Parts: sequence; structure tokens; C-alpha cells
Amino acid sequence: MSRSAAGPEIERLIQLLAKLPGLGPRSARRAALHLLTRKDKLLEPLSDAMRIACERVATCSVCANVDTQDPCAICRDAKRDASVIVVVEDVSDLWALERSGAVSARYHVLGGTLSPLDGRGPEDLNIGTLVDRAMAEEVTEVILAVNATVEGQTTAHYVTDALSETGVRVTRLAHGVPVGGELDYLDDGTLAAAIRSRTAF
Amino acid sequence: MSRSAAGPEIERLIQLLAKLPGLGPRSARRAALHLLTRKDKLLEPLSDAMRIACERVATCSVCANVDTQDPCAICRDAKRDASVIVVVEDVSDLWALERSGAVSARYHVLGGTLSPLDGRGPEDLNIGTLVDRAMAEEVTEVILAVNATVEGQTTAHYVTDALSETGVRVTRLAHGVPVGGELDYLDDGTLAAAIRSRTAF
Repeated sequence: MSRSAAGPEIERLIQLLAKLPGLGPRSARRAALHLLTRKDKLLEPLSDAMRIACERVATCSVCANVDTQDPCAICRDAKRDASVIVVVEDVSDLWALERSGAVSARYHVLGGTLSPLDGRGPEDLNIGTLVDRAMAEEVTEVILAVNATVEGQTTAHYVTDALSETGVRVTRLAHGVPVGGELDYLDDGTLAAAIRSRTAF
Repeated sequence: MSRSAAGPEIERLIQLLAKLPGLGPRSARRAALHLLTRKDKLLEPLSDAMRIACERVATCSVCANVDTQDPCAICRDAKRDASVIVVVEDVSDLWALERSGAVSARYHVLGGTLSPLDGRGPEDLNIGTLVDRAMAEEVTEVILAVNATVEGQTTAHYVTDALSETGVRVTRLAHGVPVGGELDYLDDGTLAAAIRSRTAF
């Protein structure tokens, strides 16, 4: 569109950087310039890191996490509780739960939510493999750690139905006041859920 | 710091992405995941574009622009006015002026501003090469297109002194009301400059 002083190689770099979440056309240009003026310190290492990630990182055939080994490090970890499977929508949710340190079980990444409007049906999610895993004798509980959105809850209901034959206990995350949250800023649904699920003090 | 589910290769990718301007640790993680789940469409092309940029892009020995050829495409362009040199602080300023389409001359990138506090003196900027270029017979004017900041103006004064022997005409960008700007939101300095430099209507 606009006249550009940069050659086609630099333009291509800018266009690809602009596809990253969080970077627009303007910040992509700034990022490209930042890279080009720091060739040895940043551009070359980043290019190498991307090539290595491209070659080695794969999707775990068990839980659909991304890792450099298959099955992934979490699925291989013998110290984790094999009786519980934590179901998440995306790998980013898996990473968030791992950072919290609250999970010592294994995961299962659905790869999204059901969304008829976007043409995403059950066959596009990793539900079949989840049912297969839940059939295993040692699995006793599946925790649905999906987002508290309409799509997430719809997906949770579908997954619960699919798991009904396996006989495992299906649980979901608690709704309530976030730690550090102020009541005045919370929506009615959250407050109602927090009252309903109140616990002894 | 925090426990991470990603392997060392992915962690390294996240750490390097976090060094890009506009991306923090959190958005770098999102960007890395975005890349890893779009290997063929984004990660591989971006890795290739970076490698190509790394191999081919160099600093122009004449004007210090970045390009895949040396001298750069602008310095080689015979259609450009060789009698004027537009002095900018950084390549990003050169790109901004090129996008505006207002310049049909050549550039000279200083590579920053004088900043004694940061230990950046005249010898760290491309001032010597500018004086050499201004000595050439065809050059009659140097436009100082530096930022209207204290550092930019200090640098402009220094460059003007350095150019005094060459006999070229040294000009600077006009100060005034930005096109589309509202007076009520402008600072006093800009308004005073706009009044001082008023033109016939």
C-alpha cells in the first residue's frame, strides 16, 4: 500500500512478524528494525531457535500438548497422578495450570471448543482420544478445566456426555470470587455462583 | 522463575521473542504458541525470512540505511535529487519519511542522538561520513529531520557546527500545528512556534 524504503526481504519479515498476536503492522516494523540492528545478539539466535522449534517440537500423541518428545514430558512423568486427567481447551491453558503448580496429574488438550458458527464440531476436537484414555482402568476422575465461557461450558457438557459410558467421575473447576478480587467489580453471575457455593468459614 | 510445562527449546523461543519491542513475557508466550501451532504457515516461513534477512541485510556504507544491497537502493537511485541530504536519527525515521512520500532526495542515518548521560558522544554517530558527503560538489543542502526532542535538537546544533566548513545550506523541519491537530490539545511550545512561523493565507 504505502511506499516503503525496505527491500522485499525486509518487507516479508515485517509482514510475517505482523501475523504474531500482539503485533500490528506498525509494531511489526519496529520489531523488524530492532532485529535487523541486533543481528548477532537477537536476529540470528531467534532465527536458530525458530528453526530448532520447527524441527523438534511436535504434538503429543497422547494429550496433544506441544513438546520436543512424544509422548510429552508430562505424559512421561511417572511421578504424576495417573488416575486424574485435566481437560483443557488449549495448550496455553495447560501452561497456565502448570505455572499455578496446582495440578500434579496429566492433561488432555481438546484443541478448542465446540463452535457451530465457526463450523467446529466434535470431530474437530480431541474427544475420541479422551474417551479412550478415560476407559483405562487407572483413570478415576476427569477434571474439566475449560474456560467459563458459553463455548467452554457447551463443550464441557458435550464432553461429559461422551464420558458417561466410561464410568469416571467428571468434575469441573469451582466458580467464585477470584483471589484478590473486589465484590464491587464482579459480575452478577460470579457473585451468585460464589453465594451458591459458599463454604464454612 | 515459574514452573513451566514447555521444554528448553520452547522456553528459549519465548525468551527471545520477549526481547522484541511490543512483546512482554506473557505476550511472547502467546506468540510462541501461535507459532508452534502454525508451523507450516508461520513458524517455518518466519524462520526462513529471518535467516535470509540475517544473511543478506547489511548497513549501507554511504547512508547507514539497512538494505540487501550496499549502497542501498535509495543511494543507488539515480532519479533522486543528489543535491540534498536528509539527516535522520534512525532507520525508522527514514522509513517514516519514505512512507510520507515527501522526500525525493537521499538520506543520512546518524544512528541516534548525542546523549552524554548515556555515554553517547559525537564519535558514536555517523557525523564524519555526513561531513565527507556534504563536501561533495553536488550537495547544496542538508535537511536536519531529527526529532523535536531536546536530544534531537542538541544533535542538530552539533551537526550544524560540524557542517559549517562545508558551505552547504543547513535547514530543519518546520514546527507547527500537526495536520488534523486541535489547538486545545497542543502544548505551549508548539503553539508559540506555529504563531512565530505563521504564513500568508
